[in-house]
Amino acid sequence: MKKTSVRTRVLTGTVAAAAIAAATVGAVSASAETTETPAAVKADAQNRNLAQSTGLTIDAATRAAQAALDAATKVGQHVSVAVVDRDGVTRVLLKGDGAGPQAPESAERKAFTAVSWNAPTSELAKRLAQAPNLKDIPGTLFLAGGAPVQSKGAPVAAIGVAGAPSGDLDEQFAQAGVAALAK
Amino acid sequence: MKKTSVRTRVLTGTVAAAAIAAATVGAVSASAETTETPAAVKADAQNRNLAQSTGLTIDAATRAAQAALDAATKVGQHVSVAVVDRDGVTRVLLKGDGAGPQAPESAERKAFTAVSWNAPTSELAKRLAQAPNLKDIPGTLFLAGGAPVQSKGAPVAAIGVAGAPSGDLDEQFAQAGVAALAK
Amino acid sequence: MKKTSVRTRVLTGTVAAAAIAAATVGAVSASAETTETPAAVKADAQNRNLAQSTGLTIDAATRAAQAALDAATKVGQHVSVAVVDRDGVTRVLLKGDGAGPQAPESAERKAFTAVSWNAPTSELAKRLAQAPNLKDIPGTLFLAGGAPVQSKGAPVAAIGVAGAPSGDLDEQFAQAGVAALAK
Amino acid sequence: MKKTSVRTRVLTGTVAAAAIAAATVGAVSASAETTETPAAVKADAQNRNLAQSTGLTIDAATRAAQAALDAATKVGQHVSVAVVDRDGVTRVLLKGDGAGPQAPESAERKAFTAVSWNAPTSELAKRLAQAPNLKDIPGTLFLAGGAPVQSKGAPVAAIGVAGAPSGDLDEQFAQAGVAALAK
Amino acid sequence: MKKTSVRTRVLTGTVAAAAIAAATVGAVSASAETTETPAAVKADAQNRNLAQSTGLTIDAATRAAQAALDAATKVGQHVSVAVVDRDGVTRVLLKGDGAGPQAPESAERKAFTAVSWNAPTSELAKRLAQAPNLKDIPGTLFLAGGAPVQSKGAPVAAIGVAGAPSGDLDEQFAQAGVAALAK
Amino acid sequence: MKKTSVRTRVLTGTVAAAAIAAATVGAVSASAETTETPAAVKADAQNRNLAQSTGLTIDAATRAAQAALDAATKVGQHVSVAVVDRDGVTRVLLKGDGAGPQAPESAERKAFTAVSWNAPTSELAKRLAQAPNLKDIPGTLFLAGGAPVQSKGAPVAAIGVAGAPSGDLDEQFAQAGVAALAK
Amino acid sequence: MKKTSVRTRVLTGTVAAAAIAAATVGAVSASAETTETPAAVKADAQNRNLAQSTGLTIDAATRAAQAALDAATKVGQHVSVAVVDRDGVTRVLLKGDGAGPQAPESAERKAFTAVSWNAPTSELAKRLAQAPNLKDIPGTLFLAGGAPVQSKGAPVAAIGVAGAPSGDLDEQFAQAGVAALAK
Amino acid sequence: MKKTSVRTRVLTGTVAAAAIAAATVGAVSASAETTETPAAVKADAQNRNLAQSTGLTIDAATRAAQAALDAATKVGQHVSVAVVDRDGVTRVLLKGDGAGPQAPESAERKAFTAVSWNAPTSELAKRLAQAPNLKDIPGTLFLAGGAPVQSKGAPVAAIGVAGAPSGDLDEQFAQAGVAALAK
Repeated sequence: MKKTSVRTRVLTGTVAAAAIAAATVGAVSASAETTETPAAVKADAQNRNLAQSTGLTIDAATRAAQAALDAATKVGQHVSVAVVDRDGVTRVLLKGDGAGPQAPESAERKAFTAVSWNAPTSELAKRLAQAPNLKDIPGTLFLAGGAPVQSKGAPVAAIGVAGAPSGDLDEQFAQAGVAALAK
Repeated sequence: MKKTSVRTRVLTGTVAAAAIAAATVGAVSASAETTETPAAVKADAQNRNLAQSTGLTIDAATRAAQAALDAATKVGQHVSVAVVDRDGVTRVLLKGDGAGPQAPESAERKAFTAVSWNAPTSELAKRLAQAPNLKDIPGTLFLAGGAPVQSKGAPVAAIGVAGAPSGDLDEQFAQAGVAALAK
Repeated sequence: MKKTSVRTRVLTGTVAAAAIAAATVGAVSASAETTETPAAVKADAQNRNLAQSTGLTIDAATRAAQAALDAATKVGQHVSVAVVDRDGVTRVLLKGDGAGPQAPESAERKAFTAVSWNAPTSELAKRLAQAPNLKDIPGTLFLAGGAPVQSKGAPVAAIGVAGAPSGDLDEQFAQAGVAALAK
Repeated sequence: MKKTSVRTRVLTGTVAAAAIAAATVGAVSASAETTETPAAVKADAQNRNLAQSTGLTIDAATRAAQAALDAATKVGQHVSVAVVDRDGVTRVLLKGDGAGPQAPESAERKAFTAVSWNAPTSELAKRLAQAPNLKDIPGTLFLAGGAPVQSKGAPVAAIGVAGAPSGDLDEQFAQAGVAALAK
Repeated sequence: MKKTSVRTRVLTGTVAAAAIAAATVGAVSASAETTETPAAVKADAQNRNLAQSTGLTIDAATRAAQAALDAATKVGQHVSVAVVDRDGVTRVLLKGDGAGPQAPESAERKAFTAVSWNAPTSELAKRLAQAPNLKDIPGTLFLAGGAPVQSKGAPVAAIGVAGAPSGDLDEQFAQAGVAALAK
Repeated sequence: MKKTSVRTRVLTGTVAAAAIAAATVGAVSASAETTETPAAVKADAQNRNLAQSTGLTIDAATRAAQAALDAATKVGQHVSVAVVDRDGVTRVLLKGDGAGPQAPESAERKAFTAVSWNAPTSELAKRLAQAPNLKDIPGTLFLAGGAPVQSKGAPVAAIGVAGAPSGDLDEQFAQAGVAALAK
Repeated sequence: MKKTSVRTRVLTGTVAAAAIAAATVGAVSASAETTETPAAVKADAQNRNLAQSTGLTIDAATRAAQAALDAATKVGQHVSVAVVDRDGVTRVLLKGDGAGPQAPESAERKAFTAVSWNAPTSELAKRLAQAPNLKDIPGTLFLAGGAPVQSKGAPVAAIGVAGAPSGDLDEQFAQAGVAALAK
Repeated sequence: MKKTSVRTRVLTGTVAAAAIAAATVGAVSASAETTETPAAVKADAQNRNLAQSTGLTIDAATRAAQAALDAATKVGQHVSVAVVDRDGVTRVLLKGDGAGPQAPESAERKAFTAVSWNAPTSELAKRLAQAPNLKDIPGTLFLAGGAPVQSKGAPVAAIGVAGAPSGDLDEQFAQAGVAALAK
């Protein structure tokens, strides 16, 4: 790695992020203090204002996505796989070999739907019989193939699969991904 | 509140959510088990697969937004205020009385920018002198008025303000919001 | 507040806004007169060309949103709340703790729908039996959970709630927000 | 339900929907009372929660747009004209004969920009010398051709014109539209 | 009108447009010849390559839109009116006093739908009984309220109206606009 | 071609179109008369309300696009070509072999820009020196490679090319397309 | 063609593309080596990492599109035709004379749908009887008129046609395009 | 896995895909033959109409993405990584732990830009000095961090990285991903 000066390092990028990386943050704050902009408020937010939430590590999310893809490949199916976090944000997207152009976004939407209601999309699709307009909620797709990842029963992520000849197959592959996280 | 049967309760909505609400989740999982859909994977994700992240409670976020708005109102300025979480998702949006139509999205983008780089947007705008294309990153706005909310130095949220006659004023109001969280 | 020169004050921001803030506007108009741009037309629009419309103050809108959120929290539900004005523009958005990623936009669309037809969305959803394509109108969502705010029977705003296990629950929370405005 | 005169009831809101019938509007309100949906909150919002805002009548807005278009036609220019309200929402759009495909949205954005900062866009474009990133605010266009419509000095609408060989010409036509409102 | 030099005139705007304005075009072509860019091809397109199409003048389109709006106002309805050309591009948009936020885009889509199939949208909505997926075509809205404007039986424009309590009323107003063009 | 009944023919599609195809339109109008929808206005729009505009036939537009693509292929360049009409609507799009993913939309935007200002985009790009914000107009791209197609000096279409190592090359290919229309 | 230096040639454009054009690529790589940016990795990807996919040449795709358009024109129908590749990306788009404004995107979506499931859209539309939510997948349109192009039974492209009075007619024209590729 | 009949299997999903999976395609074609829709054209496209293109396998693309992410993690940086194919379509997306919300789309755009011009984005950013409007091409981002993957010198994919404090760091990680494909 070519050495870059501290000045360069803070120049164009994100400095740090979650608490686990707090060490690198100081430099930026320090340089901010010397500018003529309005003085930044230095005090940390009080604990009583904070809430913790749970998600998957990228390693776990990648492993789950690959387990889902492998399950599909093993039976000759060509699919896309998405893993989203509790906020519906995509953590991992894999467009498998031979998967159609409609598959990636379908996979993301199935995962989004599963994490929103903490249930498999095969189950959620049945609810449309009584509440058909649920499917008009932006970002959702009520087709089998999405499965929530839970921690203590609450949704912390979801896996969506699309591209197999039936949604039930897609969902089996998604569940294979979920199962990989329980090991 | 009219009593609704369990059946109705699980019908059209989200059941539960983050870990803090795990208690209500059970019912859904239970009913899911009795369906003919592919058997859901019941085992929870293992701890080693999980990561914790920190954010603001909605009470804290609302209090901060109102502190920013109050700071503006006190000096006769008409602004919008946004509070976003670490993922850039809006937690609170207030379109103040008399704020222009450009203000809400400006406030959201300033907050998005501040949380992305963990620095006030007044500071970030200066970086454009050396990396002018940073401002082409989708969702960003490099104008003063955004301020990060930190926990142990890492960004956990950000506040954006827009609508005052100068970005420096906007940022003072945003910092007033940040300051309210340190109390 | 750091003192900024008049020049700075008019530099990057909005100067004033609604009639209640007319005082600060003069400066801009004045400086505009001294430029070489086409002379601005100074005369005010005549009264006969003007119409008044009614909306909520940001204080009232925030109070209503919080009342809706409190009603949900009290019974253990995790929801998002939106308050829109008569033009369908969001005045307040709160994404409650534990609310799913689908909730904020659902809340906004329910409120948009309620203010467009001046009726609760539970009522509007029933109209689809006879006019099913109503739900194809952009920006709408025909799910219970939206409630109009009226002044003399006309809609001046609306509250939308999303995230509870049923739309009926969502709408009860929205109505709690409306009720807070009648006190 | 508080009785409102027919005049009031239809004044600012949309009443009803379904195709078959105006006649069913009364019935809808009535049936709402008897349904099992959550009882609607009937009380009007209290006056202290309400704010008035000022806009143009559609007759005035149309007259202003036509005055702007006539001013352009008189000197052989082919333009589009937009009139937006204080919220930036388009009230009138005219795509003149021979105007290019880029003209309508340009006109709307110029008007949006003018009403956001209560100044002609020729003036606002100069501010970019000191705050170049202002032009990254979504919905704006910093080209001459937009002019605010004021009431007591505050912006209540704006007119945007696009399509002439120079922005200065566009803005003269926009100002002709503003002037028509002062008569 | 302030005099602007030819240089200024060609600087930022559109020079000319439809054939009726060809006179002003020469200047630009001339100046283009003196640049070092690839020599422009000067020969006009041959007649055999050209096709004529028919549309409304802006005067006619505006008159039709106002006739539709007047028809609505006369019976106390608050609507938006759109006139689109054969390509579905909006020529005139009027958001009437008291029309809801959903009305303008609904009016545009109804007009778009009517001009696409050269039939009133009330008629087109019936076709959905046999071809329900027609309504998934982007830009369309299969609700009564759109009416084509014909020349020799072919569609040259369409008028869309939205906001009345029923689509049939909307369509009567649209037809009043069409009728104004036959006089 | 399989014979389809008249009933089938009018069922799901567009019936007729431009004046040149008026013959097929009658059937729909006729069937419309027998419905219970609001009686359609049968009278044609008066001539004084109508304006003619000029465009390319699809045969000519395709020939021009292919001439541009051939010119590129002849010198070993891989490009996309777009032909837009006077309204900026794409008539022909060709994504050539080996053209990059950025090329098709670039070609369309160059053509859109050229038809909007009736000048080659190489020429228009120079105007930015004096009016830099022109390039913020939605839909435009100020890079060499777009060339207008004229009839009597007025723009009736434009050709855009993208993908060659320089915009000047792109524009030479576009001009080859224009030249094919002069033969 | 005006001579441009090598420097100019690599300045603004794409240099080369698919393997068939590798010859021109060297220059860029070479110049990249002399810059102070992080040294580019020069080694080619290993063969075991690569997969081949099959598509149409632009000549074939254009011929197919024209065959489809000719089939429509021969029977007096006015349509748009799209040819997409296996990834759903448009290779050719033709908006025929007199085709309505809804036709081009309809044609593209039909082709997208046909290539995604390797079946004619008339066939796919029938599947909705059992899986109605398939049509909610973004980018699709389940109306007859799309036909896949196959190589050894696998989909390598698709043709979509829209604008005729029935989808069955549209699909006949699409199939005429497919047939032209078998000769 | 619940057994599903062949009928069910072809019901809702994609059947097959690239040539490598042609075996499963037959079933669908067969069932299509028995329907009353227009007879599908069965003949395969002729070889002379076909072109081959090269891309990465999903295994290779995933390995490359992980190598890039590992390179970043090793030096304590929190980034997102995207791998796109020659068409700019995302094959793999990884949002690393602690990466900001702006990172995923930045990574995708850097990869899109690198594959479009077959050069690292650090190199491409320099070209803006002479052709500044290149950066207005939709989908691009001219910031260091994108690197092409080549086969015989031609681009077959690209890797984009975003989130480190400087683009140069991002690009080093991207190049680590490219290097993993050369082994």
